[in-house]
Amino acid sequence: MAGPNSLHALIEALRRLPGVGVKSASRMAFHLLQHDREGAQLLSQALGQAATRVRHCSQCNTFTEGEVCDTCANPQRDRSKLCVVETPADQAALERTAAFKGLYFVLMGKLSPLDGIGPKDIGLAKLFERAQDGVVEEVILATNFTAEGEATAHVIGEAMKARGLRVTRLARGVPAGSELEYVDLGTIAHALVDRREK
Amino acid sequence: MAGPNSLHALIEALRRLPGVGVKSASRMAFHLLQHDREGAQLLSQALGQAATRVRHCSQCNTFTEGEVCDTCANPQRDRSKLCVVETPADQAALERTAAFKGLYFVLMGKLSPLDGIGPKDIGLAKLFERAQDGVVEEVILATNFTAEGEATAHVIGEAMKARGLRVTRLARGVPAGSELEYVDLGTIAHALVDRREK
Repeated sequence: MAGPNSLHALIEALRRLPGVGVKSASRMAFHLLQHDREGAQLLSQALGQAATRVRHCSQCNTFTEGEVCDTCANPQRDRSKLCVVETPADQAALERTAAFKGLYFVLMGKLSPLDGIGPKDIGLAKLFERAQDGVVEEVILATNFTAEGEATAHVIGEAMKARGLRVTRLARGVPAGSELEYVDLGTIAHALVDRREK
Repeated sequence: MAGPNSLHALIEALRRLPGVGVKSASRMAFHLLQHDREGAQLLSQALGQAATRVRHCSQCNTFTEGEVCDTCANPQRDRSKLCVVETPADQAALERTAAFKGLYFVLMGKLSPLDGIGPKDIGLAKLFERAQDGVVEEVILATNFTAEGEATAHVIGEAMKARGLRVTRLARGVPAGSELEYVDLGTIAHALVDRREK
């Protein structure tokens, strides 16, 4: 898009957002400048504030503005259980179930050797230290059931067992509400192996 | 996503971007805070600067930082021809052809009664005034070949003819490099009607 320098700079900056190419960035810039200047100013302020204020919880590594996040600071939570997830969004999904009253550790990523993401790039050292506070008894691995999530769970699981902690993994099986005919083979195989007494 | 207030504010602000829902906004916020704080600060500044500096060219209505845009200020351009387009992106597409040496008028939208966009919401009054400077002889309608673009072209064309100006429209026909077998009926019908001497 031909135009003034500050418009070019805005389009270039918008392209740093994940999944935004030059066409989307131009469309976003056009929309903000033509129809929503208030939104542009609001987003500008929100970005500046978040970038300076948001840091990592010293306990669970998730995003927070204070030293410790609300979940870790909550005295009602069961401190003997530590659930390990990849991202704050995964943690939010678990919280919505209201089925877990323990604490979390948020890796902020997953092991992915092909992308050059090793143990140092996600919060593994911090997790190992956190899990050895003498209060945590069980580490629940809730990384995703993808190749990388499984590998991450394996590495953490082995390290935790070596430290004498109980290690569990979210159950794999047939999703609620689904028909067997449409469930993939691997899932059915896992559901058979992990079958439970009725 | 559970989290601190400035993170919530950032996600809400990102949702004002066109085509961005709550999932995309969360993903963008996570990416910027976890992997690209520099990008977040850069985007914050670019938004602030563009929102305060960018305004509309007094001649052609496109985005500019000065009183008049570079194209309108260029003494080499043919001031007797005025090409009407919907957006700066459409203008850029025409400029890339290097086949037009006249000036432009950028509507910054199109008539769209169903969305409540009437003549006052796009730059029609400004266009009518612009076209009557006594220098413009021909108005070339280059709005898109969609239902709304065609309607916009029709309204502008009638008004311009009433003011005694020559009005033309971009030719419709078979796109360069295409095979008739795969071209839609409407396009072939137009190409037949608008056939030219060889």
